[in-house]
Amino acid sequence: MATPTDSSIIPIDDLSGSDCKYSQEEKEARCKLASVYRLVDMNNWTQGIYNHISLRAPGKDDHFLLNPFGLFYSEVTAASLVKVDLDGKVVDPGTTDLGVPHTGFVIHSAIHSARKDIKCIIHVHTGVGIAVGAMKCGLLPLSLEAAAPSIGEVSYHDCQGISVDSKEREDLAADLGPVNNIMILRNHGLLAMGATIEQAWDRMETLMLACESQVKAMSAGIGNLILLSDEVVEKTRKVTDEEVGMVVTEPGLMSFEANMRLLDRKGYKTGYQYKLSKYIKRQ
Amino acid sequence: MATPTDSSIIPIDDLSGSDCKYSQEEKEARCKLASVYRLVDMNNWTQGIYNHISLRAPGKDDHFLLNPFGLFYSEVTAASLVKVDLDGKVVDPGTTDLGVPHTGFVIHSAIHSARKDIKCIIHVHTGVGIAVGAMKCGLLPLSLEAAAPSIGEVSYHDCQGISVDSKEREDLAADLGPVNNIMILRNHGLLAMGATIEQAWDRMETLMLACESQVKAMSAGIGNLILLSDEVVEKTRKVTDEEVGMVVTEPGLMSFEANMRLLDRKGYKTGYQYKLSKYIKRQ
Amino acid sequence: MATPTDSSIIPIDDLSGSDCKYSQEEKEARCKLASVYRLVDMNNWTQGIYNHISLRAPGKDDHFLLNPFGLFYSEVTAASLVKVDLDGKVVDPGTTDLGVPHTGFVIHSAIHSARKDIKCIIHVHTGVGIAVGAMKCGLLPLSLEAAAPSIGEVSYHDCQGISVDSKEREDLAADLGPVNNIMILRNHGLLAMGATIEQAWDRMETLMLACESQVKAMSAGIGNLILLSDEVVEKTRKVTDEEVGMVVTEPGLMSFEANMRLLDRKGYKTGYQYKLSKYIKRQ
Amino acid sequence: MATPTDSSIIPIDDLSGSDCKYSQEEKEARCKLASVYRLVDMNNWTQGIYNHISLRAPGKDDHFLLNPFGLFYSEVTAASLVKVDLDGKVVDPGTTDLGVPHTGFVIHSAIHSARKDIKCIIHVHTGVGIAVGAMKCGLLPLSLEAAAPSIGEVSYHDCQGISVDSKEREDLAADLGPVNNIMILRNHGLLAMGATIEQAWDRMETLMLACESQVKAMSAGIGNLILLSDEVVEKTRKVTDEEVGMVVTEPGLMSFEANMRLLDRKGYKTGYQYKLSKYIKRQ
Repeated sequence: MATPTDSSIIPIDDLSGSDCKYSQEEKEARCKLASVYRLVDMNNWTQGIYNHISLRAPGKDDHFLLNPFGLFYSEVTAASLVKVDLDGKVVDPGTTDLGVPHTGFVIHSAIHSARKDIKCIIHVHTGVGIAVGAMKCGLLPLSLEAAAPSIGEVSYHDCQGISVDSKEREDLAADLGPVNNIMILRNHGLLAMGATIEQAWDRMETLMLACESQVKAMSAGIGNLILLSDEVVEKTRKVTDEEVGMVVTEPGLMSFEANMRLLDRKGYKTGYQYKLSKYIKRQ
Repeated sequence: MATPTDSSIIPIDDLSGSDCKYSQEEKEARCKLASVYRLVDMNNWTQGIYNHISLRAPGKDDHFLLNPFGLFYSEVTAASLVKVDLDGKVVDPGTTDLGVPHTGFVIHSAIHSARKDIKCIIHVHTGVGIAVGAMKCGLLPLSLEAAAPSIGEVSYHDCQGISVDSKEREDLAADLGPVNNIMILRNHGLLAMGATIEQAWDRMETLMLACESQVKAMSAGIGNLILLSDEVVEKTRKVTDEEVGMVVTEPGLMSFEANMRLLDRKGYKTGYQYKLSKYIKRQ
Repeated sequence: MATPTDSSIIPIDDLSGSDCKYSQEEKEARCKLASVYRLVDMNNWTQGIYNHISLRAPGKDDHFLLNPFGLFYSEVTAASLVKVDLDGKVVDPGTTDLGVPHTGFVIHSAIHSARKDIKCIIHVHTGVGIAVGAMKCGLLPLSLEAAAPSIGEVSYHDCQGISVDSKEREDLAADLGPVNNIMILRNHGLLAMGATIEQAWDRMETLMLACESQVKAMSAGIGNLILLSDEVVEKTRKVTDEEVGMVVTEPGLMSFEANMRLLDRKGYKTGYQYKLSKYIKRQ
Repeated sequence: MATPTDSSIIPIDDLSGSDCKYSQEEKEARCKLASVYRLVDMNNWTQGIYNHISLRAPGKDDHFLLNPFGLFYSEVTAASLVKVDLDGKVVDPGTTDLGVPHTGFVIHSAIHSARKDIKCIIHVHTGVGIAVGAMKCGLLPLSLEAAAPSIGEVSYHDCQGISVDSKEREDLAADLGPVNNIMILRNHGLLAMGATIEQAWDRMETLMLACESQVKAMSAGIGNLILLSDEVVEKTRKVTDEEVGMVVTEPGLMSFEANMRLLDRKGYKTGYQYKLSKYIKRQ
């Protein structure tokens, strides 16, 4: 195990003592979720202490893990994650008393209620994400990333202000619809979701590059751009991991493990349980 | 206390000896203000040795602390801050003889004179800030950040050149008006102010993301953008910390302390007196 | 030899033991190719685990070296490179069992089959590259880089989706043509090729700056830009290294060795065999 | 003296032994010029091994110091600088045999011949610089930086291709004219010059921010921008350091020394002879 290359790194896995109160399943979920906070930080997609990444708690479908309000993403650890119910009420505060503002969980709560297939929701405010969300055209099919199978159809939700109204929850669920996994919050930010953390992460990475490319391309003016035809988009979205010929077809896993290896190499102590080690026989 | 992760870091708090000539209140204010210079540096909002961040001195409403002219923001420490009066005359030079150019303090002096409610003024020249200030449309309501309660109504001041004229002070005060806390200096830069350092910092952070998003979105052309309606802007601006459900409602404090923790973790030795430690019980 | 400045660095040359199964020529080729993966990473042109840089294997024209699918570019080493044949079938898996997805090699296979003069192909997805590739105008002659001798005529290939169709190979070869060394994949990414690794690298570096400049200039609108005349482009493309008066005229070598020195200074252990040391007599 | 924070740093001053063959004046000039190469590198204005920064040699008006062709700017040291005459012929190769391509010195030679008042010329290819140089409008008066006294009137030179023609030298001199210190090379890059290294550096820093702001502002469309009036530009350009009230009025010195302190703090060993130390009495 690597020693930290930067002594200011707070280890992610602070649950490794023998007296850990959480099940092995929850411990792993907490480590993985805290690691995603660090990846978002490492990619400079953070906005200080704001926004949330939520995960449905293992074994308890109406409980959710997320960051306590007031920590930087670089400070979020496995043990500090807060567990809340669908109303955002704190069930387990973790190692802080910071809690979760009720508005913070409105978006997550709305989606977790409406879509049982979704386990993880990543929400970020980045310049390119807000910019694409403010364009009438929305996300254009101008890159393979925008047409990727992991992205699929994109939902849009018009901004109603800072989300304090519980009635906005109905609109969020309706706008997302029953199958989409990406929702662009107009004038607000991005949402990427998935049945697993790995899938949600993979989607956000792909979406972010698509947004960045679009912002840069738009300087030419929308009329001067080449867009992918509906046919190419359709075809691209249907490509399966099997067709691609991937060794491992668990969505997003290969990318996620590479990120975990990077964090561990830099001394973050992710506590991550590697599944692909057998494929990587280092000399 | 962490050891510096980068040996080139100059400790912020160089007043910790027993023979410190300043009151405890001034010592804390100096540490906090010097820390903001470092945060601006860390966020790459600096322009070399130029521009100023000023703070009304504790207990003396017509004295102000700011950076000596000639130091990088990465060099500003608690003891090196200069104390000047409303005319920019040096009252206490701090640990350098660099002084303050009289033009440097014109903007700050104008605002501190006109608005007793304001204690801290952050002024920066960043690419995105100058760009938005050069757009006829000014700051557009195209992100939640642009409509945030901390931003509120934005004032504009037309550029009269490098501020050497004392008569520009009247125009600055008139343009700012009695309640606004953000002023965009046309063709020049940004100003964020507040009754506390924390508030001014929080406003600048929010404003900068709003400017960045606008610059990126504008590549689509202003006619192709979705703007927040007046109604949504109005509603968003009125959201209170209580409605949001924040544990701590002192404006900007939670964000500021997270930044101080980051600096201290990296070895900057902020000398900051933490208020929120009780909420964060690390294992 | 420098010690790593960052303990998270994985040494590039992991073939230096006496029992290395590869020929000296292949060992050097593997080190050099793995080094290019690191340079792409260092320049932030990576897209996680995706995309490929391929090299025709020394002494075996229908075998190719490339990255195993699932490693970050920061993890690719000399020994981990996979050797495949023109159909993408694995001939030598290297030190992992990750293999190569059959789609991943389609583009490379098409070009390596059609153009025996090309040994190395670098393919990247960067925001500026995708943006220029989505502009109807393509790469404009608005910088010396765009008109550089190393760039020459640029080919374009329309996007047919994720490259799973072997029949796309014919189109790729036809679009590239018999002499060009740069191909912009519309709505997809960039390709830079060469008779050597050094040449391909030099081309990609030049192309990327040309794309970045174009994206930034296009904000003024294409009608407000000055373009190089055909005459100047023609003249510039014909300038030879001899005319420039370069000491060493092996294309791209001087730039490549500077990059290798940088990697070695930072502790990457490139295993690179320096040719220009005689010109650099350090005191 | 700080120890390097990054062991990959090559010390700038490699002339400090007692057997240094250069005069004290040349030794200091070489250290200062090599330091500017590092500053350009630190600001990411480099383009690999390309481009030049030249300095008229002390005591010999028709000799010039510049980088040997083939080193990264991070490798340029005091001893490695090459001395050439006005025709680019090597007079002193420094510690390498890399020499200087004759094309490389064409631009510098043209200006140094025509303008005896100029001692230092900084030439860079950056995305924002090339972009502004490709805009028909040139550098717009949309920021205080664009109208700064240190910038003044800007000259323009149309691109004639890679500068291999000696006859382009006449055009360069004519386009620059007798007093300007900034020249934008259309479709090519930026030039900032000065009677001292400090002045040239200060100009390039100011120009680069002006270009960055313009690129970002232009996304709104030139018709939607506020420009400084001729009157304000005129007034701003005439402001003197005395009027500003600067302690030290040697142009660019304060900014340059802050940069030298930064380099020395990071372990670059600049060999710089500080003039302002008396103003900075650290506790």
